[in-house]
Amino acid sequence: MTDTASRPGFSSFALDRCDDLRSDPHALAELLAHPAARQILLRGLDPVGDGAQLARVPLAHDARLDTHILLGKDEEGAPLFVALGPPGLPHGGQFAPRVWEMAAELGPEELSLYGCARSLVDWHARHGFCAVCGAPTALSRAGWGRRCPSCNAEHFPRVDPVVIMLAEHDGRVLLGRQPRFPPRRFSALAGFVEPGETLEGAVARELYEEAGIRVRNVRYVMSQPWPFPSSLMIAATAEAEDDVITLDEKELEHAFWASADDVRAAMAGDPAAPFIAPPPMAVAHHLLRHWVESV
Amino acid sequence: MTDTASRPGFSSFALDRCDDLRSDPHALAELLAHPAARQILLRGLDPVGDGAQLARVPLAHDARLDTHILLGKDEEGAPLFVALGPPGLPHGGQFAPRVWEMAAELGPEELSLYGCARSLVDWHARHGFCAVCGAPTALSRAGWGRRCPSCNAEHFPRVDPVVIMLAEHDGRVLLGRQPRFPPRRFSALAGFVEPGETLEGAVARELYEEAGIRVRNVRYVMSQPWPFPSSLMIAATAEAEDDVITLDEKELEHAFWASADDVRAAMAGDPAAPFIAPPPMAVAHHLLRHWVESV
Repeated sequence: MTDTASRPGFSSFALDRCDDLRSDPHALAELLAHPAARQILLRGLDPVGDGAQLARVPLAHDARLDTHILLGKDEEGAPLFVALGPPGLPHGGQFAPRVWEMAAELGPEELSLYGCARSLVDWHARHGFCAVCGAPTALSRAGWGRRCPSCNAEHFPRVDPVVIMLAEHDGRVLLGRQPRFPPRRFSALAGFVEPGETLEGAVARELYEEAGIRVRNVRYVMSQPWPFPSSLMIAATAEAEDDVITLDEKELEHAFWASADDVRAAMAGDPAAPFIAPPPMAVAHHLLRHWVESV
Repeated sequence: MTDTASRPGFSSFALDRCDDLRSDPHALAELLAHPAARQILLRGLDPVGDGAQLARVPLAHDARLDTHILLGKDEEGAPLFVALGPPGLPHGGQFAPRVWEMAAELGPEELSLYGCARSLVDWHARHGFCAVCGAPTALSRAGWGRRCPSCNAEHFPRVDPVVIMLAEHDGRVLLGRQPRFPPRRFSALAGFVEPGETLEGAVARELYEEAGIRVRNVRYVMSQPWPFPSSLMIAATAEAEDDVITLDEKELEHAFWASADDVRAAMAGDPAAPFIAPPPMAVAHHLLRHWVESV
């Protein structure tokens, strides 16, 4: 674990999540009516800021538990909610420009609170129907689930594990570039963990599929929630058996082996560096820093 | 990473997953018609064995891609499928006694293949309808997704990350017991990772919620797919700040601090040990072994 200041974005959630109160209707009604209760605002799925904080407003006097998610309680015990989005909310799978701007303004705990709220609001907007039977579902567990009144199935918000990794070979690390990246940006390779797979297996499979690189000695480095819409980034290093890249051009536009000097120059923002590094909000930035500090 | 023989169950998946072929109808039709193509059989969600192997049968001549999941290709290039389950398949959230029996008979790679097939078949059985709009969905990507013909949403199989961890204090580790455990069984504490949470945050939250223990220095140990129905177990150790247990009796029946000698006795099956250890199929067994070998 790293200290708060050096963490990637969305990794500093600081509220008490109140898991023990989520299924207690009496306690929830008290939290909703609490004089210090507030809700954070989203515009669509984008954050609404107030300086370094997310904007907070009191709840309407007729606010209802079935349209509000309890995010948790702050240090003073004040409950914090977010309202479900309007029908037709666009899907939050893509990273929104507004979030990049806000991320520079918001403190780490506020950005993390926003990320959690965004994932949950997006999940509710895309899970109004029961996958088991097709009937409309209703919010349950203070927003941490949905229940089907027809077949009684319970559904829980998704958290999708993604591995993101640096293959190392002879003092260099493998970096790749997706076509959608900004110009000259390179980053660590990444991919979703599949059913029936260990994290170590997913790291090895993705590096082989995307770059033809076989690895051993996968080592965990750190994790990060990434709310676009609901990923859990799991960052690792691995030792490559050789350095012959066979690119999967459906996934990557280009890949190369970066030296420690290349990485140091890119992390320092040197215009002569052979690539532009991912920003501090991304776990790949911290993974590169971890690697360059270890060699 | 550990070698195959010392891995927990379900962690030795050995097929080529053929990710690059899943969206290629021509390649998939060839795999389905391949003379060496086989399907493994499930009875409900239970495995059907043939000695140390899962039973394999040729595909019916009229087998269809929209009712079969491509699990992958074996070392000889033979494609392996599993058929979707019949309507009304019971939910696979609970561990089935038949699986415990079979796990002792099947080799590690076969058990892992079964686990992957079980997770996927169960997911399809519980995701016949679109969560976005409620319309019936159809298998896509060779069984690694479902598509809604009505709203065009794409859905992917769930992988739900779960942290499982040993808090350490003064040469002892915290073990707990859920009411549903067999008599005298104790294990590591565990819980689902939530949206907006790092793995390290989930470890700290669960230990505090279930046992009132505050921790620091969370360290990743290993991971394991656990197909009941779709968990990814992520095992860790952490340093406890003190040893005063405040039990959440809704989650745990009892918890105690086990010494290295206690753990060694339990792992050796000593009837005088103060508890019965989790079996080698469970990642908790390997986490305990990792810890006891490190102290």
